[in-house]
Amino acid sequence: MVDPRAYEAMSQPVLGIRDDYFLGVMADIQAGLRTAFGTKNEATFPIPGGGGAGMEAAVASFVLPGQKFAIFAAGIFADRMSIAGKRQRANVARLEKTWGEVFSAEEAEAFLDRERPDVVGFVQAETSTGAYQSGRAITAAAKKFNALVIADCVTSLGAMPVELDSVGVDVAYSCSQKGLSCPAGLAPMSMSPRAFEWLQKRPEEPYTWYLDLSLISKYYEPAHAYHHTPSPPLYYAMHQSLAVIEEEGLENRWARHRRASQRLLAGLDKLGFTPLVKNPDERIWHLTTVVPPSTVNEAALRQKLLDRYGIEVASGLGQLAGKILRIGTMGPLATDENVDFLLDAIADCL
Amino acid sequence: MVDPRAYEAMSQPVLGIRDDYFLGVMADIQAGLRTAFGTKNEATFPIPGGGGAGMEAAVASFVLPGQKFAIFAAGIFADRMSIAGKRQRANVARLEKTWGEVFSAEEAEAFLDRERPDVVGFVQAETSTGAYQSGRAITAAAKKFNALVIADCVTSLGAMPVELDSVGVDVAYSCSQKGLSCPAGLAPMSMSPRAFEWLQKRPEEPYTWYLDLSLISKYYEPAHAYHHTPSPPLYYAMHQSLAVIEEEGLENRWARHRRASQRLLAGLDKLGFTPLVKNPDERIWHLTTVVPPSTVNEAALRQKLLDRYGIEVASGLGQLAGKILRIGTMGPLATDENVDFLLDAIADCL
Repeated sequence: MVDPRAYEAMSQPVLGIRDDYFLGVMADIQAGLRTAFGTKNEATFPIPGGGGAGMEAAVASFVLPGQKFAIFAAGIFADRMSIAGKRQRANVARLEKTWGEVFSAEEAEAFLDRERPDVVGFVQAETSTGAYQSGRAITAAAKKFNALVIADCVTSLGAMPVELDSVGVDVAYSCSQKGLSCPAGLAPMSMSPRAFEWLQKRPEEPYTWYLDLSLISKYYEPAHAYHHTPSPPLYYAMHQSLAVIEEEGLENRWARHRRASQRLLAGLDKLGFTPLVKNPDERIWHLTTVVPPSTVNEAALRQKLLDRYGIEVASGLGQLAGKILRIGTMGPLATDENVDFLLDAIADCL
Repeated sequence: MVDPRAYEAMSQPVLGIRDDYFLGVMADIQAGLRTAFGTKNEATFPIPGGGGAGMEAAVASFVLPGQKFAIFAAGIFADRMSIAGKRQRANVARLEKTWGEVFSAEEAEAFLDRERPDVVGFVQAETSTGAYQSGRAITAAAKKFNALVIADCVTSLGAMPVELDSVGVDVAYSCSQKGLSCPAGLAPMSMSPRAFEWLQKRPEEPYTWYLDLSLISKYYEPAHAYHHTPSPPLYYAMHQSLAVIEEEGLENRWARHRRASQRLLAGLDKLGFTPLVKNPDERIWHLTTVVPPSTVNEAALRQKLLDRYGIEVASGLGQLAGKILRIGTMGPLATDENVDFLLDAIADCL
């Protein structure tokens, strides 16, 4: 759900990309994204496109052809990172786990010890399964073997702890239409000083020109070197939605998502649904994944919710297709009232 | 300048990408783009990002590593296509000409006969110089040597003749914020049946996953396979601006741009400015490039226009920096009243 203030912001006049007002909007967005990402990284900014653009920018900029790229894979978005790595002609190694589970410190260390990768990739909040992995177990292992870490923060940013600096992530990407409650169309990125330095010394040019983070980052430096024309309405919307987050307070927003998730799961439990992710610490707060009772046809239930209440609940993807419901309660939706309305609607449609 | 109806459209509610209303918007956009591109190409649709995304999608999807890619180069955007080709590890050959000039049939044929390229690239309306080249001379030569033709239509689409089918272009890309009077953020693309067929048989996967046109085009097929999340406000804006173009009539819009350009050049001539592009048939109608009288400091003039009138006139780029003014009169701006206002403002600031 897009924040109403973000909608309103989009009708502001389009300005030249070096206009002082627009540069001020950009600087505010960078500051707001640093807060949401939990980082002091200077190189923190949005790029055009969705989360997929962010993923490709990260992988194409930081993974060289022939390098070993180790991916922790337990969902569709880890699979996409693997595809992006292969397209860069990297040597992709995957540690696979049942969807909905996360990786332990022991598993991470054994995998990286065996593979000795140049770059490591993981998904912090796997939209296809509802599993959250802070990444601490993975970054600790990566540090031991001196590998750069790329984190997919598409679903975590703005909604639950990302904390790049404290977790130790080098390169992170996200999207605008999930935890930030903006329309789709921008991919926030962040690079640690170590990652940024590596990028300046990259031995060969990446295949991509459009998503080359070393070129894009120059727009955010004082000379504002032209690389592409940004989409002002999307920047205005993000500017407002980051202001909304700052006013509520990031940790208050997390707590609100967490409360909504707990209330939703307690209500669903009474209706016979069971959470896909067993460990409460490994659950995404604003995207709840549940297995319906065996008597329930999940597709029929979703259709009824849409027809009777206009509520869109997502189906399972990939190996979880037909097996789970994925229920988003992000941003403005994460309130007691909305959760109760949703629970009543589900009870009615069963 | 963004059409007021496009602004208004952006506050429509964001919908799921498979929602029937949204699919209808997409289908209307595809139809409107076919009209603007002058094509029957089924594979005609917008992709996320600016004109640079369109360029990279075209080059990365259609130029294989090691292939010969012949570029007609007389401006910055042809240089960018060369960069994109080199990043794909193609063998780039360039025919260079003084900026502001276009290529003759003889020059095109001699160049392609010498190079025998797999793919040919040219810029239909070169924003950096104000020169327009329909492309007929180039496609005729390319046909002789059986090369695929990529056309940069970033500045021509929606504003002056593109006519892909009659010109014989295989792959075209454009942007949303110029001739279509939308905000930036979408890149319209079109592929001929021959190009589309080649893409299905491409011998190896492109380096890019995000801008792989064979993957993106599947979203526009009946199954609407998910590849990325589109940005609904940008689609709503384009939907409206294409409706505005249809209501006026594409050829009426061209004629309006042409009249505005002639009126502007006649007025500028009286003030001592001379057109950079000598041949009237080779001028972009909605982006007029002129050399100021030798007594005029172009940077000071541009600053005065901005300070006194809020009018933004662009400077020269690259080898034309400091030498020309680039004056846009696109979409809603191309009226007698606006041109006269602009001429009076320039006279006042001299």
